[in-house]
Amino acid sequence: MAPGRPHPMSRRDFLIRLGQYAGTGMMLNAMASLGMGIASAQEIPPPLGPGNGKSVLILGAGLAGLCAAYELSRAGYNCTVLEARGFAGGRCQTARRGTVMEEVTGAHSVCEFDEGQYFNHGPWRIPYHHLSTLHYTKVLNVPLELMLNDNEQAYIYSERGTGALRGKAVRRQEVAADMRGYEAEILAKSIHQLELDSPLNEEDLERFVDYLVAHGALSTADRRYLGTRGRGYDVPRGGLLNAGSASTPHSMADLLDAGLWQTIRSVASFDQPKTMFQPVGGMDRIASAFEREIGHLVTYNAEISRITQNQQQVTIRFRNPDTNETQETSADFCVCTLPLFVLKNIESDFPDAFRTAMNAASAVTSCKLGLQMNSRFWEEKDRIYGGHSRVITELENVQISYPSHGFQGSKGIVQGIYNFGTDAVRYSVRSLDDRLEHALQMGEKIHPDYRSACETSFGVAWHLVKYSMGAYASWSQEAYNNEYRLLCEPSGRVFLCGDHMSYLPGWMAGAFDSTWQQLARLHEMAQNA
Amino acid sequence: MAPGRPHPMSRRDFLIRLGQYAGTGMMLNAMASLGMGIASAQEIPPPLGPGNGKSVLILGAGLAGLCAAYELSRAGYNCTVLEARGFAGGRCQTARRGTVMEEVTGAHSVCEFDEGQYFNHGPWRIPYHHLSTLHYTKVLNVPLELMLNDNEQAYIYSERGTGALRGKAVRRQEVAADMRGYEAEILAKSIHQLELDSPLNEEDLERFVDYLVAHGALSTADRRYLGTRGRGYDVPRGGLLNAGSASTPHSMADLLDAGLWQTIRSVASFDQPKTMFQPVGGMDRIASAFEREIGHLVTYNAEISRITQNQQQVTIRFRNPDTNETQETSADFCVCTLPLFVLKNIESDFPDAFRTAMNAASAVTSCKLGLQMNSRFWEEKDRIYGGHSRVITELENVQISYPSHGFQGSKGIVQGIYNFGTDAVRYSVRSLDDRLEHALQMGEKIHPDYRSACETSFGVAWHLVKYSMGAYASWSQEAYNNEYRLLCEPSGRVFLCGDHMSYLPGWMAGAFDSTWQQLARLHEMAQNA
Repeated sequence: MAPGRPHPMSRRDFLIRLGQYAGTGMMLNAMASLGMGIASAQEIPPPLGPGNGKSVLILGAGLAGLCAAYELSRAGYNCTVLEARGFAGGRCQTARRGTVMEEVTGAHSVCEFDEGQYFNHGPWRIPYHHLSTLHYTKVLNVPLELMLNDNEQAYIYSERGTGALRGKAVRRQEVAADMRGYEAEILAKSIHQLELDSPLNEEDLERFVDYLVAHGALSTADRRYLGTRGRGYDVPRGGLLNAGSASTPHSMADLLDAGLWQTIRSVASFDQPKTMFQPVGGMDRIASAFEREIGHLVTYNAEISRITQNQQQVTIRFRNPDTNETQETSADFCVCTLPLFVLKNIESDFPDAFRTAMNAASAVTSCKLGLQMNSRFWEEKDRIYGGHSRVITELENVQISYPSHGFQGSKGIVQGIYNFGTDAVRYSVRSLDDRLEHALQMGEKIHPDYRSACETSFGVAWHLVKYSMGAYASWSQEAYNNEYRLLCEPSGRVFLCGDHMSYLPGWMAGAFDSTWQQLARLHEMAQNA
Repeated sequence: MAPGRPHPMSRRDFLIRLGQYAGTGMMLNAMASLGMGIASAQEIPPPLGPGNGKSVLILGAGLAGLCAAYELSRAGYNCTVLEARGFAGGRCQTARRGTVMEEVTGAHSVCEFDEGQYFNHGPWRIPYHHLSTLHYTKVLNVPLELMLNDNEQAYIYSERGTGALRGKAVRRQEVAADMRGYEAEILAKSIHQLELDSPLNEEDLERFVDYLVAHGALSTADRRYLGTRGRGYDVPRGGLLNAGSASTPHSMADLLDAGLWQTIRSVASFDQPKTMFQPVGGMDRIASAFEREIGHLVTYNAEISRITQNQQQVTIRFRNPDTNETQETSADFCVCTLPLFVLKNIESDFPDAFRTAMNAASAVTSCKLGLQMNSRFWEEKDRIYGGHSRVITELENVQISYPSHGFQGSKGIVQGIYNFGTDAVRYSVRSLDDRLEHALQMGEKIHPDYRSACETSFGVAWHLVKYSMGAYASWSQEAYNNEYRLLCEPSGRVFLCGDHMSYLPGWMAGAFDSTWQQLARLHEMAQNA
């Protein structure tokens, strides 16, 4: 929408405002009244009337499976969960001393972090609008703390570009403040000459210039950007005669030459708010909380080898962990949360189209590496508490993330690698030693102590982990419109759930939301049976 | 500095970079080498060689006094602390069940919060660059957590201005994203027509437009602002068929008419970073930690009535809390941390000029009110977790702050009033009941549940609190250049410390920084004596 005078309130505006004032529930009701269908913006699980002892086999004890078992068993369904791994949570893991990681290539590592140190190598942050995830942290009493997802004191370092700032660690706030200031200066000085698409009246223009002066931190006298306290002080103010010393902006040309603005955003994206949540003590607290409630329903180390069904029931063949022999079990329904990259390789009698549709999901390749540092030099020397720095080389764009917990402690775990796509593939081909070496090379470009402080590392290449075979699923828009829709429908008595069955792949809320919706359908089918 | 090509590296640039790479200590050494004097950007306390049992009377057990006692006693000085209140910490207090507040007007209240609920009615946030404060939280093992000081999901509500957004609760991120987008759109479309002060070359211009497109979230095709996910979704994406629903921007004219941009900033100010710290469990944990170490040196309920000195020692007259009789005590030196508004009314033999200089400090009036709510409706209904909303009426601009701890708990304390100046004076004239009523009237403008959820309140009017008589001191620039400088010098054997003796009045770091500097001077005097 181009700048201009007010427009009449649209239906959407009405709904936005209703949502703001009366909450999403009221908004959704209104949308239904207006004939605007929308699947769900779920705040709470669907009501599941009495299950009357009907039986459900739940495949996988990741968050989707745990959620299904929790909700269905509360509603009176008779649930059994089969999990191939020896623990619950799926990819929602936290590395601690003793955690084991095996890759299908044979790489094997055991976490040697100090007791009390931990690293979320699966999901690591919860946005405020992931209502289903927040529902479970609340009802299961998992305490949350803030996770700083955008720290303006962190560094941007780039070997691309040119000029004075190339190959220098620059604070994000300097780039943000200076670019913002120059932009506002240019516009404030010239706004009255411009021909706008939808002319603002003279009063609007004056107010707009006021806005530019305030947001760009321009001098009120001549509308020049001369720096701002917000970009940092050379010397902070202090006691007695220390009046502090302001800092000097970078030149606009230096900033453009170095291209540093490419890694900052003026407004946070929706999925990545500037602060997010993390469970106190590690992300695996969520799975542990479910386990406390319904862990007795889970059989661990039970790898599934066949899924078949008839008009009455679903039959699962799996390895019995006690006897180590193959056996079968049947139930009225099945909730299948296995990643599609795993499921499609399991024998089944799904219709061909259903089975083929699974191939439309691409496995996202992704690696993480946590480095235990023997001092929190990023806090003590750089005054960076949480958030992310970026190291950009000709070949790579590496995010280095600092912990948002244990501030001022003696040690800490830095996330030195978090990559995707071809970066992740190239990285995961390296030996474990080479992976660490690469992370150290990147980190020491901005932190001189990085290598000497590093005591031990632990990481994951999700696309090489058995029972996952990918960090998460990626669907093209075309696949979302076609194959994905087919998989959303139950295949007989089998319902697919998991973050791969959502518009939030890779997020815990995708697992919960899809499960809530499928459970509502399962319950409806059970009642009508 | 106007946009343009690079300039040669200045001395200041050199120092900035040295500071970034080598830390502040190295930078300060370099500044000294370059002959650039600066008092201090202190990271650690000054070295205080052996005190050899010399005696120091410390007046006041606020943070400055506690700090002085801690450092001097460790260095071998013989310290006695006299405190008029019955507890340590001065204004650094946390209200909990049973906390008593008395005002000099006779108003008396006892905190009735539930057990476990608390509210920092004195200092409540620590910036990452307050190194002295962070020094003590570290060495005294006071755990810190993030305090969210800028939550883009919080509301701005204004009854000033006109148009469709007047009197509506609007999310801060909507205002930020939409103003940003329109600004970038205008500039991106017209940048090639503009005559700039310092012309950018063609390549610079292209890169600048790329920046505008990215930061304004403009469509790449025609450089229009059509909204962005960052301003929020009407319906967030979720499971199965819920692909979410984007939100529609406000019009630029509506935004200008309502003037909502006046309460948001693109770049955080230096004193108010977007995230700050708070001690886990309450700000009074800092005073408690000092008390654990040197509490035995403090005599509480010991009101001081006279300060005199001769060439050898300082003599303090005070009320002995055990006998309730006036008595005197003497020592080699005195560290006086009393607020100037209190000190200037105590009998003393300070030189006239020194005593008169105290009048140059103005007492800042300020009130706070914490409201215990029986539900965290701002989290459950509005999805606001921490940060501040603003309610702007014709008369007032009220900040409402949500707790950054106890997320998803059943109750919480909202800071409903935090005002200054004439707002604070007008507010503090009201009865305690009327103060609460006023806070409720403001809060219910954006939160329908505000009044019904409120169970009890507790607050402070710092300018009416005995032994404080102001929230903190304010110095004009002229006073900083004259009277303040006189007070920075010791008067005989008496050294003034406290946040009032700093360029950080009202901040805990001002208390610590000024104390560190005075202790270094005291120690020098003691050694030369």
